[in-house]
Amino acid sequence: MTTRQNCLALDRADPLAAVRDEFELPDGVIYLDGNSLGVLPKAAPARLASVIRHEWGNDLIRSWNSAGWIDLPQRIGDKIARLIGAAAGAVTVGDSTSVNLYKVLSAAAALRGSQDHRRTILYEHSNFPSDPYIAESVAKAHGLELQLIEADELDTQLDERVAILMLTHVNYRSGRVHDMPAVTRAAHAVGALAVWDLCHSAGAVPVEVMLSDADFAVGCGYKYLNGGPGAPAFVWAHPRHTARMDREQLRQPLSGWLGHAAPFQFTPDYRPAAGIQRFVCGTPPVLAMAALECGVDVFAQAEAFGGMAALREKSLALTSLFIELVEQRCAGLGLALATPREDVLRGSQVSFARDEGGYEVMQALIARGVIGDFRAGDPAASVASPDLLRFGFTPLYTRFVDVWDAVEHLHAVLMTGEWREARFAARAAVT
Amino acid sequence: MTTRQNCLALDRADPLAAVRDEFELPDGVIYLDGNSLGVLPKAAPARLASVIRHEWGNDLIRSWNSAGWIDLPQRIGDKIARLIGAAAGAVTVGDSTSVNLYKVLSAAAALRGSQDHRRTILYEHSNFPSDPYIAESVAKAHGLELQLIEADELDTQLDERVAILMLTHVNYRSGRVHDMPAVTRAAHAVGALAVWDLCHSAGAVPVEVMLSDADFAVGCGYKYLNGGPGAPAFVWAHPRHTARMDREQLRQPLSGWLGHAAPFQFTPDYRPAAGIQRFVCGTPPVLAMAALECGVDVFAQAEAFGGMAALREKSLALTSLFIELVEQRCAGLGLALATPREDVLRGSQVSFARDEGGYEVMQALIARGVIGDFRAGDPAASVASPDLLRFGFTPLYTRFVDVWDAVEHLHAVLMTGEWREARFAARAAVT
Repeated sequence: MTTRQNCLALDRADPLAAVRDEFELPDGVIYLDGNSLGVLPKAAPARLASVIRHEWGNDLIRSWNSAGWIDLPQRIGDKIARLIGAAAGAVTVGDSTSVNLYKVLSAAAALRGSQDHRRTILYEHSNFPSDPYIAESVAKAHGLELQLIEADELDTQLDERVAILMLTHVNYRSGRVHDMPAVTRAAHAVGALAVWDLCHSAGAVPVEVMLSDADFAVGCGYKYLNGGPGAPAFVWAHPRHTARMDREQLRQPLSGWLGHAAPFQFTPDYRPAAGIQRFVCGTPPVLAMAALECGVDVFAQAEAFGGMAALREKSLALTSLFIELVEQRCAGLGLALATPREDVLRGSQVSFARDEGGYEVMQALIARGVIGDFRAGDPAASVASPDLLRFGFTPLYTRFVDVWDAVEHLHAVLMTGEWREARFAARAAVT
Repeated sequence: MTTRQNCLALDRADPLAAVRDEFELPDGVIYLDGNSLGVLPKAAPARLASVIRHEWGNDLIRSWNSAGWIDLPQRIGDKIARLIGAAAGAVTVGDSTSVNLYKVLSAAAALRGSQDHRRTILYEHSNFPSDPYIAESVAKAHGLELQLIEADELDTQLDERVAILMLTHVNYRSGRVHDMPAVTRAAHAVGALAVWDLCHSAGAVPVEVMLSDADFAVGCGYKYLNGGPGAPAFVWAHPRHTARMDREQLRQPLSGWLGHAAPFQFTPDYRPAAGIQRFVCGTPPVLAMAALECGVDVFAQAEAFGGMAALREKSLALTSLFIELVEQRCAGLGLALATPREDVLRGSQVSFARDEGGYEVMQALIARGVIGDFRAGDPAASVASPDLLRFGFTPLYTRFVDVWDAVEHLHAVLMTGEWREARFAARAAVT
């Protein structure tokens, strides 16, 4: 039987414990929502103050060269490349995940061409809807059809109709992980391109886009990368797609000036840059980039303590412990595990289904300083889609004792009926 | 004959003089490049520090509600609306100018429809090339043709072939202003939609999108709005286009979740939000938005001193004075005015053509602390496109004595041959 003492001992033995000091964590809070908005890296306030006062305020326009602003998309891209198994030079940073997804889906659809008999974009029904919204738009523009399936239907629905298989590597509700190499292989076997959304993976679970032989990937800067609210997103394309510089070269429709082969020649006709640079569009958001770089740089420090392998090991230990403790302490209190129990299928979050008052339970937890989030179920879904209490575990800064204490709070909220209090009943606009 | 004493007297009499105190201006610098990157508002460092430490660092995910992060695109949009003659609720902020231009051009092309006989997007050849790069992409997707013309050809080329007339209100090279009401009227008379790029207008010259009856507009946050390097851009659509909520309603292809009618219902199908909100795509970049709001808020303070009308009056006085002094002091020194002399045709910048060593002249000026920029000519252009020395005058903070001193430096650089020194000859990547 695990005790709080055991948890404290696990923290003392944690090789990654020192990395927690790289973050500002608010007092009195157990933050289990890093999969929605990551925490503040300690380096960020001073870095931003310097960018604002010196680079912007004093050096002004000269900072595009002297402070390397113009290199930020590539420089941060190179650092993110290490976290997702991409080569240096193959990732760039800018715009939002949705905008980047539009770029890669459009590029993929154009690669397929209108003569190809494959006419379907396949995506998972229960995932974050911005992806299918964008896919719907790209499908319409290219005469394709978007088909939403359940994860379990991949075996039967991934066939020769499919032009593009687009998947979120870790499901935002259940935390279920796809086997990227195997699914990509299956996509290629039927002639489909594989596009991966890494929003809930990058920095949380090991990703190997090159070893998986994936085609395109996009991901978020403000979740596990701790880049700040609304941080720029990243985009990767396999070099086999960006290497061609002939007439058949890869094109994406957001052909802004910084994706041009020679942006400072100001020629009136667009000529895409070599490599991933053609996925850049407008002027990079420097302040947001600087904050993101502070978040990404923590991973370089974590490499001294075992890097992504150690982070994955700790993440699984945290999520396993949370499942174990909730199932022990809260047995019979109306929670049902909605995340795969098997390690290999689980990302860095744990969700529990709740039939009654899930929203109120989460509000009561938040009032106690345990911040997770509530995700309403979809009563119209073709398979069971219950209301979820979702808890993210960020191995960079979450402690084993946080897991223990969070479960104690959850137990108290459920046992005492605290969640039934009127103050928790009002529904907020954003949860 | 104007003297430096006259200039100091003009500054003492300037009703907008107090607004300069709202900005951090580096010592020893005369900054005439606010049309490339605006200066730092004094409020920004503390505001960003607070957003970073308190809203992000301490309140974390709760700040989407408690700090109003979710309202930033609309709140800042409302403030920008006042500067461009739009109604509250009709402008939103986010993404880059190029991405927003892609949205509005795509929406405009879809409004026209594939059955319409008008198949041309018309744009000005000599303007900032990110716009035609994006237009080329939209044209290709919609079976339209992009035609680049010179400003003087508008009278003959704006005819019934034209589906969309897209113009930059103030030319980034010459500073020439289009007559927005008249040109929009001419576009509508031939059945074309009028799309305006306000990058070099917003905050610098009065703009009246509603009174002009324009169709769409986009613009930049980091030039005259002083929103910081790579600040988010804005987008406006005439309410006649966004009011329809039936099957024929206006659509833009970057259909991300925050442009959905009910983004927090997480439904799998996209349904555009009412009004301009449908032009929002992904999660707003909070840090960049906060900086932009500091820049935009200065205009509210300037309203006490006469607002946009007073800013325009001072801007014209500054640019007139600069033209007058350069033509007096630097007569015979190889500079030719490349900006309209007539007030009504001039934005808030002055460019001088230079046949020889324009780049080196600007580098020598910058070494003396006078920061303007150099824009190389296009030898392949169909009309004369000389190398330009470009000087931006920002009535919020540029003083009349700055104009005087800048001209004295320019005179010294040209008279002494200082610009011929070897140290100014090396060509930098970004100018």
